[in-house]
Amino acid sequence: MSLHPAVAAVRGAVRRALAHVEPGRTVVVACSGGADSLALLAATVFEGRKAGWHVVGATVDHGLQDGSAAHAAHVVAQMAALGADETLAATVHVDAPGLGPEAAARRARYAVLEQVADRFDAAAVALGHTRDDQAETVLLGLTRGSGGRSLAGMRRSFDRIVRPLLDLSRDDTVTACQVEGIEFWDDPHNEDPGYTRVRVRRTVLPVLEEQLGPGVAAALARTADQLRGDMDLLDDLAEAAYAELADLPVDGLLAQPTSLRRRVLRLAALAAGCPASELFHEHVVAMDGLLTDWHGQKWVDLPGPVRCFRRDGHLQFG
Amino acid sequence: MSLHPAVAAVRGAVRRALAHVEPGRTVVVACSGGADSLALLAATVFEGRKAGWHVVGATVDHGLQDGSAAHAAHVVAQMAALGADETLAATVHVDAPGLGPEAAARRARYAVLEQVADRFDAAAVALGHTRDDQAETVLLGLTRGSGGRSLAGMRRSFDRIVRPLLDLSRDDTVTACQVEGIEFWDDPHNEDPGYTRVRVRRTVLPVLEEQLGPGVAAALARTADQLRGDMDLLDDLAEAAYAELADLPVDGLLAQPTSLRRRVLRLAALAAGCPASELFHEHVVAMDGLLTDWHGQKWVDLPGPVRCFRRDGHLQFG
Repeated sequence: MSLHPAVAAVRGAVRRALAHVEPGRTVVVACSGGADSLALLAATVFEGRKAGWHVVGATVDHGLQDGSAAHAAHVVAQMAALGADETLAATVHVDAPGLGPEAAARRARYAVLEQVADRFDAAAVALGHTRDDQAETVLLGLTRGSGGRSLAGMRRSFDRIVRPLLDLSRDDTVTACQVEGIEFWDDPHNEDPGYTRVRVRRTVLPVLEEQLGPGVAAALARTADQLRGDMDLLDDLAEAAYAELADLPVDGLLAQPTSLRRRVLRLAALAAGCPASELFHEHVVAMDGLLTDWHGQKWVDLPGPVRCFRRDGHLQFG
Repeated sequence: MSLHPAVAAVRGAVRRALAHVEPGRTVVVACSGGADSLALLAATVFEGRKAGWHVVGATVDHGLQDGSAAHAAHVVAQMAALGADETLAATVHVDAPGLGPEAAARRARYAVLEQVADRFDAAAVALGHTRDDQAETVLLGLTRGSGGRSLAGMRRSFDRIVRPLLDLSRDDTVTACQVEGIEFWDDPHNEDPGYTRVRVRRTVLPVLEEQLGPGVAAALARTADQLRGDMDLLDDLAEAAYAELADLPVDGLLAQPTSLRRRVLRLAALAAGCPASELFHEHVVAMDGLLTDWHGQKWVDLPGPVRCFRRDGHLQFG
């Protein structure tokens, strides 16, 4: 029997994304029980046998839904049945003041995956995000209106985190599960229109595909790929400029192009104690006004609270 | 009677965008007869009286619809009634092989406006694009998937072209016309779902606003503003890098960050004769493969047709 294209695609994606993992090293696969992460685990087990990896399946119980402990136990049994060398379920308590429930759960999940990776000295932690997740992320970022970084989507990899399935569709992972006889779970959260991401998935993206032609999700993901490189470069340039202009001289700042200068001001505000989650573009533009539209303003109020002054030819914080 | 806020907003936008125009100089206002451009003309006449500008209303007849000549004559009469110092109607023949009808009409329109501006030695040519037009442009660019430049939308100004209304909504211009008693024209093209832009306006943006909350158009326009500065800076850096690496040495190119290197390759391909409208991201990525994934490829085929080779430590075109 020949290999089904969807299974081959998932395996190939895992092989390429984890090509750097040496024999004998551990790969942690984060597994919710959905089609994407189960397809990812099955493919990682298959490729891991050939490559000599130790594959750990890890599921995170956020305790947010009734029966979540029983669900976690079911996923653990599934991961073992799919051939994971070890399995692990971690319960986290989501309690992050100032974050929405989705952001808080995400932060808790990454923290526990980091711990698991440390414990196993893992070479990689694989996540099952697909091209559809990426497209949703880009659209959510677009409507925040906060510039290129918010459109740059999820990274293919950072630190030990790897997302092998970013070029595959969610349907590819469903098909891969179906042809391999893997029963997957449909998270009821994925049907709850109270979540913005669910509305993007179920209404916005289908309307875009219907009105603008198929391939919108792929186009959004492609745009994110290009923007990520662009934004990384601009951030690197801004870090270098900030290192040179650490005392924020007015003349030196005004000599920079606007998009670099504003990034430098943002870095300086963060260093002065403004919380990243509350520092918006409008704050940075107001600081920039002390340079480009100087008419003796007293100060600019920033979150923290922090104040930014112009004094003796420099910007200063107080 | 106090000034209506919509009229005040249009006038204020014109005053700020044309603050650089000296007394006695000419401002050309491009006018389709729609609410946006008629509100723009009325405000430019009002501000121009105070500032001492010579205001020329210009309408372009593409000859694409039955009765377009009569429509142009009607717009000319309206522009005169609104107080334009001179009026002008230009007929253009849209015939641009390889472009869609919208792009061809746009190119012809800009060309004729350039001629008009030359003839009057105009200091500025004002166009009536609003924030809604900008949001539509960003969404159209997003679905092309061609990176940050395609999301950067329309510039606020370039050469003599100025778009004073980019921060106002289309509704603002409709209101301004209504309170000033200006009858405006609804272009039947704006109702024709055969045009992608019409589907974006009538279906996609309303669904985004409904599902993701109001303010989506403003967020899209804000993102475009930020991206424009970012993309301009990256393009400037790429021009500088290309000037230094004009002979395309492999080592020198590989020392550049990916997003700069690919921009340099794009500039080199354009210089080698590839038509801009046919040179896609995938072509640039294929050229980049001669650097980053070199395994003795024979060449890369580019539109033109042009071929890119790697030879003696350099990329070359043939």
